[in-house]
Amino acid sequence: MLTRIDHIGIACFDLDKTVEFYRATYGFEVFHTEVNEEQGVREAMIKINGTSDGGASYLQLLEPTREDSAVGKWLAKNGEGVHHIAFGTADVDGDSADIRGKGVRVLYDEPRTGSMGSRITFLHPKDCHGVLTELVTAAPATSEDH
Amino acid sequence: MLTRIDHIGIACFDLDKTVEFYRATYGFEVFHTEVNEEQGVREAMIKINGTSDGGASYLQLLEPTREDSAVGKWLAKNGEGVHHIAFGTADVDGDSADIRGKGVRVLYDEPRTGSMGSRITFLHPKDCHGVLTELVTAAPATSEDH
Repeated sequence: MLTRIDHIGIACFDLDKTVEFYRATYGFEVFHTEVNEEQGVREAMIKINGTSDGGASYLQLLEPTREDSAVGKWLAKNGEGVHHIAFGTADVDGDSADIRGKGVRVLYDEPRTGSMGSRITFLHPKDCHGVLTELVTAAPATSEDH
Repeated sequence: MLTRIDHIGIACFDLDKTVEFYRATYGFEVFHTEVNEEQGVREAMIKINGTSDGGASYLQLLEPTREDSAVGKWLAKNGEGVHHIAFGTADVDGDSADIRGKGVRVLYDEPRTGSMGSRITFLHPKDCHGVLTELVTAAPATSEDH
């Protein structure tokens, strides 16, 4: 069951400049940064608010670490902007199986590692009215320690 | 001060079909529908979660009511997908003035009426790393009655 907007994934050419834009314009501070080699991105998480399921909603700023990554190819085609949206769930495995059973293409056979130790998968945007949609189960500590 | 992700605005060709996709796939139910003639959209708000500032986060599904509306033109160019993101604030007037003072173009001279009686404005996407960004102050009853 999807219980929150977990994050909005925003692709950018220069992570440091984009982080600075969000800080200078809105006062948003970076909560966490990491490099995800599997996804081919360097990313910054900006926490915007807590959510009623005990989690939080973030902006996820994404800079590709290589041109042939999914985000790198998307940026070359589309320019900067919203790359995907992500819903939080306590059970990414169960929800993925349920959604696959409804005929929506789930891009990974098994969830992979996302931001801050989360487990994630993606749904095909062509099956979701043009929206690349991620499902996220946060690592146990993430939603409780901060 | 921006205190929540208020909504993600998603442009679609057929609102009823898109509402049904979100219901059938995720179990999301429509919270509110309306036509905004000034914006040229028919819209459905799907409430996803409550937020730590006492508000809520929604998906806002948008179907243009005329081809020459902003969303109609955007759809013709881009196809279905994420059209904008919106941050909630208690003071859209003050935050708009503050952000305009930082050199970011604010699209309206004065906030206009948005979903559920809210007051809204938009920031130019070219000044926001490609993201059309809305600022929203909810109508007083909206965040407290539901």
